This record gives sequence, C-alpha cells and structure tokens, in this order.
Amino acid sequence: MQAGKPILYSYFRSSCSWRVRIALALKGIDYETVPINLIKDGGQQLAIIEYLEETRPTPRLLPQDPKKRASVRMISDLIAGGIQPLQNLSVLKQVEEEFQLTWAQNAIISGFNALEQILQSTAGTYCVGDEVTMADLCLVPQVANAERFKVDCTPYPTISSINKRLLVLEAFQVTHPCRQPDTPTELRA
Amino acid sequence: MQAGKPILYSYFRSSCSWRVRIALALKGIDYETVPINLIKDGGQQLAIIEYLEETRPTPRLLPQDPKKRASVRMISDLIAGGIQPLQNLSVLKQVEEEFQLTWAQNAIISGFNALEQILQSTAGTYCVGDEVTMADLCLVPQVANAERFKVDCTPYPTISSINKRLLVLEAFQVTHPCRQPDTPTELRA
Repeated sequence: MQAGKPILYSYFRSSCSWRVRIALALKGIDYETVPINLIKDGGQQLAIIEYLEETRPTPRLLPQDPKKRASVRMISDLIAGGIQPLQNLSVLKQVEEEFQLTWAQNAIISGFNALEQILQSTAGTYCVGDEVTMADLCLVPQVANAERFKVDCTPYPTISSINKRLLVLEAFQVTHPCRQPDTPTELRA
Repeated sequence: MQAGKPILYSYFRSSCSWRVRIALALKGIDYETVPINLIKDGGQQLAIIEYLEETRPTPRLLPQDPKKRASVRMISDLIAGGIQPLQNLSVLKQVEEEFQLTWAQNAIISGFNALEQILQSTAGTYCVGDEVTMADLCLVPQVANAERFKVDCTPYPTISSINKRLLVLEAFQVTHPCRQPDTPTELRA
C-alpha cells in the first residue's frame, strides 16, 4: 500500500459505500479498498463526501449557488436519511421475515413519491441542473436498492431517466457493486 | 408578517424542527413560525442548517478545519440519519403497538452506543471541541427523544454531560419544544 493513499472500508452491496466510491472516482482519487462485510450501515457517508468536496474541490459535487446546494443536500438527505436507513439490513432484521419485503418497498415508495416531485422542479440532465452532484451519487445506489426490492419504478419517470443517464458515466460504472473486490463471483458482471 | 422574514414550518415536538430553531436562534435570525402538525419528518432539515451556515456564516456552526467539519457532519448524520428516522412517528406506526416502545428504544440505544464512543474522541465542552456546532443542534433534540422513550442514559456519560451543558444556553432554551407557538397548554413550561 502506497503511503498516504486513502483507505476505503467498503462493502460491495452497500449503497453508502457506493456513494463514496463514485465521489472518489469522479475526483480521480486513487484509493485502497478494505472490504468490510457490513452488519449495519447508515447515512454517515455523506460526511465523507462533504470532506472530499472541501479538501479536493475539483470537480465540484456541490453547485456554487447556495440555493442549489440546499437542493442537492435536501435530495441527498431524503435518500440517505429518509429512505436508506429504513430499508437497510439491520432494520429489516427487526421486522418479521414475511413482512420484510413490504416494509422495504413501503420505505422506498414513500420516499420516491416525494423525490419524484422534488426532482421535477430541480432536475436538468441530472438531479439538480446539468452537472453531476452529490444528489446523483445518492440516487443511483438507491435506485439499485429499489430494483433489488422489486419496486416498480414506472411511476417515477424523472428518477428513472436521470438514473439511466448517470449509469452510462464511467464513475458510476467502475464503482458498481457488481465490480468490487469483495463482490461474490455469482454476482459479478 | 415583515417582508423578507423567513418562515419556518415547524412542529413543536419534532426534533428536526428544533435543530433548525436552534440554528436560527444562534445566528440571531428573526423568523415567522408556521406550525405544521407533522405526520412525517425526516433528516432533510440538515440541508437548511447547511444553507444557513453558507448564507449567514456568523457564528459558525461548522469548524474551519476540514477534519473537524467531517466529525461534526458524521455525528449529525449519525443522529439525523441513523437514529431519528428509525424512531419517528411514521415508522413507529408501522410497528405493532406493543412493540413500538422497544423498537424506538433499540434504535436510540444502538445509535447512542456508537455516539458515546465517537464523542469520547471528539468532545471538548461540546460535541466537537469547545464551540457549539451543528452536531450539538442534533444532540439535544435526540436526547429529549431518548427521555420521551424512557431510555436509560446512565451508560452514556459523555452524551449526558454535553447535553446538560448545552441545555443551559439561551438558544437551546428559547427553542425548546415546551415553549413553541404550537405547544399544547398541558406540555408548556
């Protein structure tokens, strides 16, 4: 391991890890991955992204305009604080097994209903305007979770089309859960 | 209502509203309260605090040093994204009534276990060093929730003593849920 190279404690499937991987990829920061099989994850990874933004400002993941920055953070918090914590593994384990899928779907659907409406007023090519922002780093992993939990995304045309445009970008592809050092062979692509 | 005076849509009991009320009080921003009986709240209010910080930088609610800023955001996200969303009303309503208290207590206890450990390395007088930061705005309303849900806080001496020091500050007192325009008479103090 190279001196000074940052270490990312990462879990291939965790949407929180994926968000940070995308930020690192966009900013061209070389890092070492230490896989951690997470029992529990949370929204804390937004602190890492804000730290990266402040110490490695190029390219920007937050717009310059304070109101647009607030939109980016509102969308990010809605996903990382309002949806993901309710459908993560540690919470699902507390729900009876037969209700787990419905519980996760309800959390995602109620969040996506709010998100779709917000995006209709903030989106350009991506979540807020035409540049990739922290909100997009949150969106793509959350849509992947929605797909895992078999949520029908047709009622969310704005979410779906932004997600599609982001998934073709290199930073989102190289960081995808199916291409991580700890991805099990049967899930690789 | 004065032109240009910001409006806070607030619910006396919501820890998310309280966080923002403290930020407004600390920054000396005069505002109009429009009470909303929240069915659902979430972590989104951190976006408002970050916006206030960027547009009204004095006094600072985030330290200047990027590592300390990351600590503040990590603690804030742990509370606003890792604890509060799991014990709020909309989630509790999805849990069978007899298990609601245990569910909320578990969410708080598991979060406080992590938080107590983090604070032992970051705290001075307050959560991060000796200045009031965004982390403190998150701490006090969460400890109030813990008390409402009858969580025993003796295993958390760092959390408890920081909370005590914060509660004597004016900004935390005037914004307290027991002193809001929509506080029911029987809960006023």
